[in-house]
This record gives sequence, structure tokens and C-alpha cells, in this order.
Amino acid sequence: MAGQDSGAVSARPPDQATVDLLGLLAYGELTAFERLATDARMSPTIGDKIALARMAAAEFAHFQAISDELDRLGVDRELAMAPFIAPLTAFHNSTAPADWLESLVKAYVGDNIAADFHREIATRLPSPSRELVLSVLGDTGHAAFAVERVRAAISANPIVAGRLALWARRLVSEALTQAQRVGVDPDALTGLLVGVGDLDALAGIFNRIMAAHGRRMAALGLSA
Amino acid sequence: MAGQDSGAVSARPPDQATVDLLGLLAYGELTAFERLATDARMSPTIGDKIALARMAAAEFAHFQAISDELDRLGVDRELAMAPFIAPLTAFHNSTAPADWLESLVKAYVGDNIAADFHREIATRLPSPSRELVLSVLGDTGHAAFAVERVRAAISANPIVAGRLALWARRLVSEALTQAQRVGVDPDALTGLLVGVGDLDALAGIFNRIMAAHGRRMAALGLSA
Repeated sequence: MAGQDSGAVSARPPDQATVDLLGLLAYGELTAFERLATDARMSPTIGDKIALARMAAAEFAHFQAISDELDRLGVDRELAMAPFIAPLTAFHNSTAPADWLESLVKAYVGDNIAADFHREIATRLPSPSRELVLSVLGDTGHAAFAVERVRAAISANPIVAGRLALWARRLVSEALTQAQRVGVDPDALTGLLVGVGDLDALAGIFNRIMAAHGRRMAALGLSA
Repeated sequence: MAGQDSGAVSARPPDQATVDLLGLLAYGELTAFERLATDARMSPTIGDKIALARMAAAEFAHFQAISDELDRLGVDRELAMAPFIAPLTAFHNSTAPADWLESLVKAYVGDNIAADFHREIATRLPSPSRELVLSVLGDTGHAAFAVERVRAAISANPIVAGRLALWARRLVSEALTQAQRVGVDPDALTGLLVGVGDLDALAGIFNRIMAAHGRRMAALGLSA
């Protein structure tokens, strides 16, 4: 549905792949904002709380940039986000972190997989949407923060490593479940998948994302 | 405790009233950010969610401005906030909204009472802290948003007015309980209360704040 009637707003409507990626990214940034802000409540120290709140505010600025781009293209931002609300909500509801460390691992693992996926797709977008998406995917400082905190926790109490490794595997499995759901929804991401090319190209993307995930888990001191 | 050893950082340490007000305001903005971002999850529409997230991001920018001012004064921001963490946390824990309308009323009532109080105290601060505090207290658009949504809900279903009026009374009562707690804590707000003058001056502040609260309740269509 998204963008189907956007011809009424703009003389040259953007292609469906652009609308879908921007819609997915916008809603992803909005939920990332919410999640970081909510996780900030679990912070063990006020310094951690401030650090998370700062990252959440940065995610909102990204959301704003993507929304502005949808406006510029004459696309209704809420229509563009609509197909992705259910799968992203389901993912977050099924992976509510039980504590501060789980929330850090989730943010680190989840945001990076999402960023890798968006980066793969972004290269197939026309300018200036491509440059905008790539700039929004810039790190907000979360990676270094999460790695430092999680490594310190594991070094203080090595027994948490097993629990966090299991948690990360559950996150990846839930993310794949929701990604498949998006993949079979004719309203969502159809344009994106057409833009990718064929199933071989999709498998290539998936393998690169999982290899990068494995390297990030090693950086955390966890087995993938 | 806050600021007691700040002489080591700055040659001319700011007075205790300034440190206390900035610390209270900084932690107040940080919790306002968290609360708005958390309440955004209860939003009935994605438009409401975006509106609340935008206000939360504005509160974080305010927090940042106050923190920068504490840095400029050579005051440890965490030490300055420390005395206000327990009472603000207790207030929010004892007044968790049950739904979207309660969260709107809480934000509207609570933020405005806090802003009135800060404004009364700010006039007693030296420049440029005074101007900074007054600019940070500028409305982030929450008032108009909350009034519009709450009035629409009451007009659609007049029975909610009684429940929300009771809720607002409970918020004021809890706020007063925590304010008294701050008032008797020798580490918190001592400087501020000295700055106010005497008990008569304090009673004057209190009366002006409650009168403004009554006018805001009427704007919502509720009895105070």
C-alpha cells in the first residue's frame, strides 16, 4: 500500500524500493530511540544513563532526517512506515531484555545487524537518498560503549558470558523470524527485494551480515 | 555534599543555590526525557508517538545545556544531581501512569508545576545561569499537545474527567510529599531555600504555583 497513491502528491514519485527502505529505516530509528530511552532506566550509574539518553537523542535526530527526506519526496511518512510496525513491534516484544547487560547486547547486536542490512540496500538507492541513508547509519557511539561495558562485566564475572551468548543467539533467531515475515508480506519490502536482484544476491547479503555478526560477538568476548 | 569540594576545580566556585538549582533542573530534564520516551510507547497513533519522541529529544537538549553550564562552572554534574535522584525517582515510581491519558495529564501537570518552581528560583540566580535556566524552561510544545488530546478525550467520553481530576490531585499530593523530603534533606536545596529568603516568601511561591495549577486544570476541562 505504501506510496501507491503518492503520485497525487509528487509529479515524479520515487520508486517503491526507496519508499520501503526509508519507511523501514524511519520506523527502525523511532523504535531504537524508544528502546534506548527505556533501557536508560536500567542503567546502573547516572553516567551510563546519560550515555544511553545521548544515544537515544541521536537516534531521534536520524529519524527526523529520514522523515524530512520522505517529506521531500512527497511520501506520507506514516504510510511508508506502516508495513514495518507489526514486525518491529513483534521483535521488540519477544526480546525484552531482563537486565542492563542484556539490553546492551541487544542494542549492539541488533543495531549492527540492522545497519549492515540497510547499508547493503542503500547502495542500490538513487541519490540523494543513498547518501542520506549512509550518513544516518553512522555509529552513534553505541558500539564502543557496549563493548567496553560487556567486556568489563564478563571479566568481573565470567559466568555471564554463557548467558549473554545464548541471549545473542535468541536475538538473531527472532530477527530472522521477523525478517521472513517482512519478506512474505506483499506490502512490505517487495520493492527492496526486487532491487537486490535474485536469491543468490540475497544469500550473499545474508552471509556477509552473519560473518560481520560473528566478528562483533568475538569483540564482545562471546561465541556466536 | 554537592559542590562542597568544587573549590578544587574552580578558583571561584559558584554559590550553593546555583549548583543546587542546576543539579535539580538537570536531573529533572533527564527524568522528563525518560518519562516522555517511555510514555511514547503507549501512544495510540504513530503521530502521537512521534510528537512525544520529539518532545523527549527536546528535553534531552535542555539537559545537555544545563550539564554544559555545570561544566563551565567547574561543578561535577553527577555530584550536583545526586541529592535529587532519590526524591525524583520516588515521585515517578509512585505515579506511574496507567494509560495514555494519565501520562499526558502527568506530563502537563508535573512539568508545569516544576517549571513554575524553577522560574521562581531562577530569578534569584546570577547571570548567565539565570538566562540559561529561563530559556530551558521554554515550552517544548507539550502543553498545547496535552490540552488538545485530553479535551478531545473528555469530550468523547465525559466520564474520564472525574478519573483524570483525581489523578491530577494525586500527582500534586505526591509532588508535595517529595518536595518536603527535599526540604528537610540538609544536602539538598539548602542553598536554594536560603536564596528564597524566609518562610513567608516560600508560602508566596507556593500560592502562586497552586493558582497557576488551578488555571491549567481548568484549561484541561478538569476541576483542581
